[in-house]
Amino acid sequence: MDDTVRQHKYLLTEDQMPTTWYNLAADLPTPMPPPLHPGRMDPVGPEDLAPLFPMELIMQEVSTDRYIEIPGGVLDVYRHWRPSPLFRAHALERALGTPARIYYKYEGVSPAGSHKPNTSVPQAYYNAKEGTKKLTTETGAGQWGTALAYACALYDMECEVWQVGASYDAKPYRRLMMETFGATLHRSPSDLTEIGRKLAQDPANWSGSLGMAISEAVEVAAQDPNTRYALGSVLNHVLLHQTVIGEEALLQMEMAGDTPTMIVGCTGGGSNFAGLSFPFMREKLAGRINPQIMAVEPASCPTLTRGVYAYDFGDTAGMTPLMKMHTLGHDFVPDPIHAGGLRYHGMAPMISHVYELGLLDAVSVPQTECFSAALQFARTEGIVPAPEPTHAIAIAIREALKAKETGEETVILTALCGHGHFDLAAYENYLSGAMVDEDVTDERFAESLSHLPVVPA
Amino acid sequence: MDDTVRQHKYLLTEDQMPTTWYNLAADLPTPMPPPLHPGRMDPVGPEDLAPLFPMELIMQEVSTDRYIEIPGGVLDVYRHWRPSPLFRAHALERALGTPARIYYKYEGVSPAGSHKPNTSVPQAYYNAKEGTKKLTTETGAGQWGTALAYACALYDMECEVWQVGASYDAKPYRRLMMETFGATLHRSPSDLTEIGRKLAQDPANWSGSLGMAISEAVEVAAQDPNTRYALGSVLNHVLLHQTVIGEEALLQMEMAGDTPTMIVGCTGGGSNFAGLSFPFMREKLAGRINPQIMAVEPASCPTLTRGVYAYDFGDTAGMTPLMKMHTLGHDFVPDPIHAGGLRYHGMAPMISHVYELGLLDAVSVPQTECFSAALQFARTEGIVPAPEPTHAIAIAIREALKAKETGEETVILTALCGHGHFDLAAYENYLSGAMVDEDVTDERFAESLSHLPVVPA
Repeated sequence: MDDTVRQHKYLLTEDQMPTTWYNLAADLPTPMPPPLHPGRMDPVGPEDLAPLFPMELIMQEVSTDRYIEIPGGVLDVYRHWRPSPLFRAHALERALGTPARIYYKYEGVSPAGSHKPNTSVPQAYYNAKEGTKKLTTETGAGQWGTALAYACALYDMECEVWQVGASYDAKPYRRLMMETFGATLHRSPSDLTEIGRKLAQDPANWSGSLGMAISEAVEVAAQDPNTRYALGSVLNHVLLHQTVIGEEALLQMEMAGDTPTMIVGCTGGGSNFAGLSFPFMREKLAGRINPQIMAVEPASCPTLTRGVYAYDFGDTAGMTPLMKMHTLGHDFVPDPIHAGGLRYHGMAPMISHVYELGLLDAVSVPQTECFSAALQFARTEGIVPAPEPTHAIAIAIREALKAKETGEETVILTALCGHGHFDLAAYENYLSGAMVDEDVTDERFAESLSHLPVVPA
Repeated sequence: MDDTVRQHKYLLTEDQMPTTWYNLAADLPTPMPPPLHPGRMDPVGPEDLAPLFPMELIMQEVSTDRYIEIPGGVLDVYRHWRPSPLFRAHALERALGTPARIYYKYEGVSPAGSHKPNTSVPQAYYNAKEGTKKLTTETGAGQWGTALAYACALYDMECEVWQVGASYDAKPYRRLMMETFGATLHRSPSDLTEIGRKLAQDPANWSGSLGMAISEAVEVAAQDPNTRYALGSVLNHVLLHQTVIGEEALLQMEMAGDTPTMIVGCTGGGSNFAGLSFPFMREKLAGRINPQIMAVEPASCPTLTRGVYAYDFGDTAGMTPLMKMHTLGHDFVPDPIHAGGLRYHGMAPMISHVYELGLLDAVSVPQTECFSAALQFARTEGIVPAPEPTHAIAIAIREALKAKETGEETVILTALCGHGHFDLAAYENYLSGAMVDEDVTDERFAESLSHLPVVPA
């Protein structure tokens, strides 16, 4: 028996928790292209967004201040689970026989079991402060809906969630979790909205998509002055709130006496990836460290590696502003058998922008490799990952095995953005041998890519 | 908005984790009655237990040493999630408007999501050390089976689990979690064992019970010299391993600068309750503190409050030694609609013994009060509790509301022994209004109580 006692966790005290969010916009070598109004096709102003968001969040969306103070009420809630732990994956490293050192920042300790409450709490806080009575939103795999349901319970607001049809059907426990926190759930496309009824006429839309669910949630919010809308990823202010992850990880890597040579994060809309990597990107831009920064996306929804960089709508119906981003087309419907989240047709504009600037790399992974990595991770580290972070784990394992061949002491830092307690049907799919890899032919992506809106020069 | 920033968590470093388990047997005012051989009806010796348990655990079972060293290999695994956090329930206190201060020790951060790995890991460790190739066990709600599956994965042992039929049917995700860790699951009663086939002939046994599942797991282990059996509660060595909970909580209450006036824990077999309370009982017996210690059990399986203190079998078939304990009779089958664990027909002999000595109080709670308390807890503290600890939460809330009336500054410490991510069907049952309280008539318990074995004086 191996009786060596190792340090597995690097923990910060509540007083060591960052009290500001970091805004990468302040350090961008070139500014981001502005979002455009979906009707006028010219840059949107704060007043265009006011029916959907409270003013404080709109100001954060366009801010170029480097640091934005986290309000006391938000800090107080963060402290329920933050600072989150940073783990050294000793057991996984041993199983791989690698000289690489693997660290993972674990966000599954939050009430929703993912990184999403980092932004649902401030979004609910600012809305409550400005008098909002109800928030509407979309959710895919369900982590965002759960996070917003929790945050609304804290501030006594109603919460109404449109969940992507395929996930709603496959994950009854996720729905129950949101209901336990007091939210109301709808299967999207629903018959509660004009756009939902229209979409439901085409059977191809029955499995739903994030884009469709966003359209429904936005439609309802826009019609009631006491109701606003909340988005769980993509937007600048969402990425901003997630930077607590990376700020903590910087301090924790210092505690561990180690410097990452590679940062690996999964990307759907991009909020988890940005949360981990942006504070490290600040340090990299300042020349203090030089890690490779790698975005990992599913082969079934490869926005960075197979999409185009263009203005596109954030939702299926074209109700949201146009954003310049890597997109597969706003009516792209990802394969419903794919088990995880990470199924948004576009990528956060800020991540798209820095990807264009060459500040990060991107790679896509097929789902069987993800779940094979997930099993090895669960059976060594003891945590069953959500399908989303299995993408990053798969690449971390690839890199650790590469290091085994070269003998290099690669230091890998990844974000384990959530646990998979509500995603075990996907594990069953893999364990039973039924899971197959995604269709990654050009034809799979061609049609929606041909539907991009035309934007005047 | 309330912008007060409070301290929510009291965290210990890995180096502050206890390195010994505490054995209450060393401090008992009178010794415990010995277990009896099921055939001979005389006290069992170590050789009687050797086919089922490794010698190191048998020695712990009968030890009267006050402290037993935790092996390095076990400490190293504990450090994956231990020390576990102690939380101050500020948000719940505010919602209740109580002057009481409520603390909860949270064990849901473990790989299995409950306190069970505290003992599954050392049990697997000692078995692996003595050459065991496979462990068999029973599981009810599934937390124990998950914990043993995880521990066996770490030490490359096979794990075969018989799950109580009603839980197996109602909780497919629990089964998948055990399979993800590599275990093999069977619905109990099964056709894989002689006793299972015999029990299955009576349709009344179809929903299963822990006693039946234990019989099956013991039968299989007894037949193969490379296979041993592991129990998740009840036995002295199991309670011993769980004392890390209370030892940590003692240090954390000190960090918080507070002393509990009341310790509240849920009791099924008793391992979570013992784990939290025994180190505090040591301090109480030594006259250093004087908290009331309260065991809370479900109205559907009230061993302490409605059972008798007598020698009884640990399993349905009468294959295990007889233990003197509070029991409802070894063939008691609790109501299958009750959602949680805590459904064992007996109580840990050591807890039964100290209950007889007047060192603790006991109370039972109906299930609707538990789930009402659980919802209030989830919507304030952000953690969805497993059904088991909702019993303790319900009593903590009762006591906090009592303090509100009297103005007393009661300091309540409870153990939140696991999360409810696999138990949301029970929440749905409550939220939909379908849940009703248990049958607590004398008739409900009379028959099994009339089947107690006759033990020669």
